Amino acid sequence: MNKKSLLNLTNLEISEIMELINLAKKCEDGDFNNIYNNKIVANLFFEPSTRTQYSFETAELKLGIKPINFNQETSSIKKGESFYDTIKTFESFQTSAIIIRSNIDKYYEQLNGINIPIINAGDGVCDHPSQSLLDLYTIYKHFKTFNGIKIAIVGDIKHSRVAHTNIDIMNRLGMETYISGPEIFNDHTSKYIDFDQAITEMDVIMLLRIQHERHQFKEITNINEYHEKFGLDMKRVNKMKRNSIIMHPAPFNRGVEISDDVVECEKSKIFQQIENGVFIRMAILYKALEKEVKQW
Amino acid sequence: MNKKSLLNLTNLEISEIMELINLAKKCEDGDFNNIYNNKIVANLFFEPSTRTQYSFETAELKLGIKPINFNQETSSIKKGESFYDTIKTFESFQTSAIIIRSNIDKYYEQLNGINIPIINAGDGVCDHPSQSLLDLYTIYKHFKTFNGIKIAIVGDIKHSRVAHTNIDIMNRLGMETYISGPEIFNDHTSKYIDFDQAITEMDVIMLLRIQHERHQFKEITNINEYHEKFGLDMKRVNKMKRNSIIMHPAPFNRGVEISDDVVECEKSKIFQQIENGVFIRMAILYKALEKEVKQW
Amino acid sequence: MNKKSLLNLTNLEISEIMELINLAKKCEDGDFNNIYNNKIVANLFFEPSTRTQYSFETAELKLGIKPINFNQETSSIKKGESFYDTIKTFESFQTSAIIIRSNIDKYYEQLNGINIPIINAGDGVCDHPSQSLLDLYTIYKHFKTFNGIKIAIVGDIKHSRVAHTNIDIMNRLGMETYISGPEIFNDHTSKYIDFDQAITEMDVIMLLRIQHERHQFKEITNINEYHEKFGLDMKRVNKMKRNSIIMHPAPFNRGVEISDDVVECEKSKIFQQIENGVFIRMAILYKALEKEVKQW
Repeated sequence: MNKKSLLNLTNLEISEIMELINLAKKCEDGDFNNIYNNKIVANLFFEPSTRTQYSFETAELKLGIKPINFNQETSSIKKGESFYDTIKTFESFQTSAIIIRSNIDKYYEQLNGINIPIINAGDGVCDHPSQSLLDLYTIYKHFKTFNGIKIAIVGDIKHSRVAHTNIDIMNRLGMETYISGPEIFNDHTSKYIDFDQAITEMDVIMLLRIQHERHQFKEITNINEYHEKFGLDMKRVNKMKRNSIIMHPAPFNRGVEISDDVVECEKSKIFQQIENGVFIRMAILYKALEKEVKQW
Repeated sequence: MNKKSLLNLTNLEISEIMELINLAKKCEDGDFNNIYNNKIVANLFFEPSTRTQYSFETAELKLGIKPINFNQETSSIKKGESFYDTIKTFESFQTSAIIIRSNIDKYYEQLNGINIPIINAGDGVCDHPSQSLLDLYTIYKHFKTFNGIKIAIVGDIKHSRVAHTNIDIMNRLGMETYISGPEIFNDHTSKYIDFDQAITEMDVIMLLRIQHERHQFKEITNINEYHEKFGLDMKRVNKMKRNSIIMHPAPFNRGVEISDDVVECEKSKIFQQIENGVFIRMAILYKALEKEVKQW
Repeated sequence: MNKKSLLNLTNLEISEIMELINLAKKCEDGDFNNIYNNKIVANLFFEPSTRTQYSFETAELKLGIKPINFNQETSSIKKGESFYDTIKTFESFQTSAIIIRSNIDKYYEQLNGINIPIINAGDGVCDHPSQSLLDLYTIYKHFKTFNGIKIAIVGDIKHSRVAHTNIDIMNRLGMETYISGPEIFNDHTSKYIDFDQAITEMDVIMLLRIQHERHQFKEITNINEYHEKFGLDMKRVNKMKRNSIIMHPAPFNRGVEISDDVVECEKSKIFQQIENGVFIRMAILYKALEKEVKQW
């Protein structure tokens, strides 16, 4: 496994997180546009994705990197080729890095034989480091600090790779993290807080997507009930603290965890998160390819 | 909605049409190759397409634009993300423009919240402005004028977004427009002319694709009968006026509305239309991105 | 048909093969990086592919060519557009060459009306010239000659486009070719050799993928039996000649025609073949576009 791989945030030092955030700022300022001219990076998404997939591609294009977008539906996966052999093939093409999303938990444990950087774009229910980093970048841009910032993550914590990665890294960065939403989703990875209390006390309300198509969800509640109890509508937004913000990794369900008119309200950072996602992914790629002097 | 969007031709002045045609000539001459180096444009095709999709991509590449090609099958659309939120995501990536084809009539009425140029690559049964413009460019290249040029559009006028856009703009440009083909498809948007009379009198015979897989078509007629009555074969081609031309937006059905040997005959401009489509789409993109000074 | 098309190896002179091999070396050395800046090449894969598809794309990117990747699932093929008309459309876009893989034997016989170079990336059970050329390049890099090199191709010779192309060209280049594996697959296109005899006598053991999902295969044998009789495991590898090598066009079935631990063993050139595939495809594209002076 290449040392420049980004698999999760667990082994990243706080100083490394801050370096990525500072690099993202430089990326946003255009300092690194086209610096990696002529490098090739392969994007292998084995799960549906809009934001992560296309913002990695956008980040690559802005850095001057030439993307190759793998489509498993028209690949030799259809002839039974394995995950490892597929990744090894792209390594053999001498691509500079590989971006991978897979529904396999810790898929990268199968990839010890791969010697180029692997960037984890989401693995099963485990990690989604680039999402966490863009969340951090968004929070840092707004509050200029992490210290003492209070966040409640609301919704299906149990099945969210975003929530787990975020709670861990945010605690390490000195933020106060809480979880809220239906008790059934509470996995006790952080302190629980009542939703309406969170509304008035938090600096950040981070909503998660309710997978209301899931069987388990249908058993315990319904959409209207959820919206009533845990949905963020303008009535609740108006009770939020003055400088507080709303976040959501998206895709979101309008009318379920978030009201239609909240999505683009003043406090909402949802589309800024998407915008920031491009810059943080440029920063991640910058680090992964840094000092890679071999030219083709 | 960004003012530089191209949604239909209804609001375009004749002078603006002529400007696009002149720009297409410059594009064909290579004057604008690579001028938009480093800009990113997203192509979102929600309906199957070969010509429109890949000629927009070709046009982008020739202008130096970097395309991002959205594939709805591997996107968050699969998780229920809405059309608007998908488009808003690409706007958040700071792409310079978005090309959209959708089967939703006037889909762009849902996109008032989008602030970057939207280029309509076909919406439901309503409009297909870039197709009309390439038809106009093809006619103008051949006749050097629109004034008094007689065209008959033949086939399923009723369900054709090309026909409606063309009839309107061609009339405004001083052309004489007729419709022909089975009476059942006559929606009286222009004067009806008998097909064999059209053959001898028109400057342009524009055939439309017969969707012979449609249930309604099977009820009223069959393929052989259609070909007999309204199919363009060499016998009919030989009766056409000396300087007249044959057009078809494609895909076409060989042996239904057009004989095999007519497709690439001397009078046929079908593949030139496809070629011209690249240049007119370069012109459209040139206009959409013009004076956009923000660089990344 | 354009003279610069590469359809099969039958009509290539030995000198032309050697020229391609020498060009591949230059490509590997980076001599041709970005020389075809701004040219567009279309990749049309009508069959699943990982190696061939993405290594052609990688080769294009390295040469500076801008690829357009056709996806038949979202194309007008879905509306019934023909193979010829689809290819003709890409020619009309003025792409510099077209790469085609299709399950139709000798599909290129339908393409006489196409005037730009066609590069055959595999047609039905007939030919796969770029695969053969990368095999040759791999052999030549290792042995520095073809003369007298002994190769056994092992497996389903009958249904392999790789085997037939290879046997013919390797014989012409002075190699000694043998076929091995189950008698049922022996089509007598070369001398048959017992597998365990081949192991000890050959310079190259080239394994083919066993399509064990095929009905016919299930009838005659099973996976374990095949692996026992014709599978390459480390016990057999240890009996191979000192300077001998193992090849496989991939995808391979670990545990069927090849043991897990053989795939990346010292003698295995499997991933080098993939790496060499990029360089030989660069060489093929270099030749196809050479002296094409028309710029856009």
